[in-house]
Amino acid sequence: MTALTTAVQPIRWTGESLQLLDQRKLPTEVTYVECRDAADVSRAIRDMIVRGAPAIGVSAAFGLAMAWRRGDDVRRAAADLRSARPTAVNLGWAIDRMLAAAERGEDLAREAQRMFDEDIESNRRIGRNGAALIGNRATLLTHCNAGALATAGYGTALGVIRAAVEAGKSIAVFADETRPYLQGARLTAWELQQDGIDVTLITDSMAGHFFQQGQFDGVIVGADRIAANGDTANKIGTYTIAVLASAHGVPFYVAAPWSTVDIHCASGAAIPIEERSAKEVVEISGTRVAPEGISVRHPAFDVTPARLITAIITDRGVLRAPYDESIRKMSDE
Amino acid sequence: MTALTTAVQPIRWTGESLQLLDQRKLPTEVTYVECRDAADVSRAIRDMIVRGAPAIGVSAAFGLAMAWRRGDDVRRAAADLRSARPTAVNLGWAIDRMLAAAERGEDLAREAQRMFDEDIESNRRIGRNGAALIGNRATLLTHCNAGALATAGYGTALGVIRAAVEAGKSIAVFADETRPYLQGARLTAWELQQDGIDVTLITDSMAGHFFQQGQFDGVIVGADRIAANGDTANKIGTYTIAVLASAHGVPFYVAAPWSTVDIHCASGAAIPIEERSAKEVVEISGTRVAPEGISVRHPAFDVTPARLITAIITDRGVLRAPYDESIRKMSDE
Repeated sequence: MTALTTAVQPIRWTGESLQLLDQRKLPTEVTYVECRDAADVSRAIRDMIVRGAPAIGVSAAFGLAMAWRRGDDVRRAAADLRSARPTAVNLGWAIDRMLAAAERGEDLAREAQRMFDEDIESNRRIGRNGAALIGNRATLLTHCNAGALATAGYGTALGVIRAAVEAGKSIAVFADETRPYLQGARLTAWELQQDGIDVTLITDSMAGHFFQQGQFDGVIVGADRIAANGDTANKIGTYTIAVLASAHGVPFYVAAPWSTVDIHCASGAAIPIEERSAKEVVEISGTRVAPEGISVRHPAFDVTPARLITAIITDRGVLRAPYDESIRKMSDE
Repeated sequence: MTALTTAVQPIRWTGESLQLLDQRKLPTEVTYVECRDAADVSRAIRDMIVRGAPAIGVSAAFGLAMAWRRGDDVRRAAADLRSARPTAVNLGWAIDRMLAAAERGEDLAREAQRMFDEDIESNRRIGRNGAALIGNRATLLTHCNAGALATAGYGTALGVIRAAVEAGKSIAVFADETRPYLQGARLTAWELQQDGIDVTLITDSMAGHFFQQGQFDGVIVGADRIAANGDTANKIGTYTIAVLASAHGVPFYVAAPWSTVDIHCASGAAIPIEERSAKEVVEISGTRVAPEGISVRHPAFDVTPARLITAIITDRGVLRAPYDESIRKMSDE
């Protein structure tokens, strides 16, 4: 992996190698890391150079394309990539699709490029479907980064916001900083600022206060995995916001591509929750903020039960409760 | 103000000057700042060298004692100190008490020392009153630092935890980090670790997840001001936790000295909420974590409505709903 310097897209395929925007360095540095084989991509996913369920899936697809081109063992590369992040379902979905294409003897580089293009098209459909639910003047709270940076481009939750702005609506966004990894402060604030969308940064702890003040017309977040009953795993902190939204009668929307729905997963209880290192909690940008030897918990995701979700906005359409029925119906389409 | 180096108490009166443990440098450095007049103390309060409503009140009292000793204008010093932090009521209470003592011609250094001693005794009473409410085996969530570091010593919320441990109860504490100022990570985690009390650090965003997992038997926090109807101002993020506790049927306790009750303040709506600088949100330990030019909100406190509070534990006794009645009754005692 070598570092290049340039502009804005999160994932760039040169035809030979994969260039990933190093999201650990945003917003202070815009730097790309070059991945030349599947092991590079796997490492980039584990190290969170690339993050966000759809972006991880597309990156893994290009990783397998490179393994295939180089004559490496594609199945072994697939197993390594699959274990890089356990919670996101898109990763497994993308890998399965690539393995199926390999069995059919297809060109895996073309298949990965198709997935890239489809992801952006899917986000634009999510955006259109979601924008219809947003009022002409609205302040929306978002958590983590479900933006262009989390996808091949455009974004899921932030895709809905972009589509609403493109439709001429007056949208203000509150982004919470999303500790411990600060995706809200580092990525969402930066990404919306780049697009000239009105964004205000708060800490996670402030969300309740602004709900109490009646600041929010809605909440919109992404998803890492949606169970067959609508329970949704997303970045740690999402559940707290869903409880607050419910307590204040504010709509809570999840925006995600259909590939995030795991119909084989009956409910949130079956979703594995990745526990990440204590270091990401006790060190911020290399500075220690807690005493040595302290016990730390760091679940990276939580599960929001379907009953707290007003609607799930997908590229296939908008799902409403009862989700077990609406998801089953949409999966048959 | 000059810096000394030594051990653990937050506030030390040498008989001549006030030594304040520099809480901005914990947990990595244990350093005292020496204040030689009221202006030094006012600056220390504004800069958050000393923080926590009771500790601020006691520090201000020593500031006025030094003004009196030096022959400075005590009323002018009082006005300057009063404006140092607007939300905490103890500050105004302590200043009023010192001004009354000055009018009576008393020795202000002795009066300040009395307030210091009374604060610790008050905390021990809060501890005993609160410990009776805690089960023999309990995991408690706390927010910010309402500990020895926030008082003359022992603590309010952490005083209850200390008293429960002293009573032989098996107590585990979850401390949330309390962004933006990280009082939980830097102060509460350190303080409980020093005392050998079982403490686990989480980010604010994780609280909901652990409520959902049934991890908590109770929540205990301090207070900066309690209105006559029981509405309680405390560190930003407290309200979010109160909503979560209510949604999960977990008791939510406030622990504070009676001097925190502002019977002239009808409800939370009348409590001024300090808005602090954006810098504390976008910079952590001097490292920038958000893009330049981003809009930021930073209310330093929020108000938890009385209906979400299971009990308010004071040195005079335990208050229960309806709080307007129980507070009125206790203020007559």
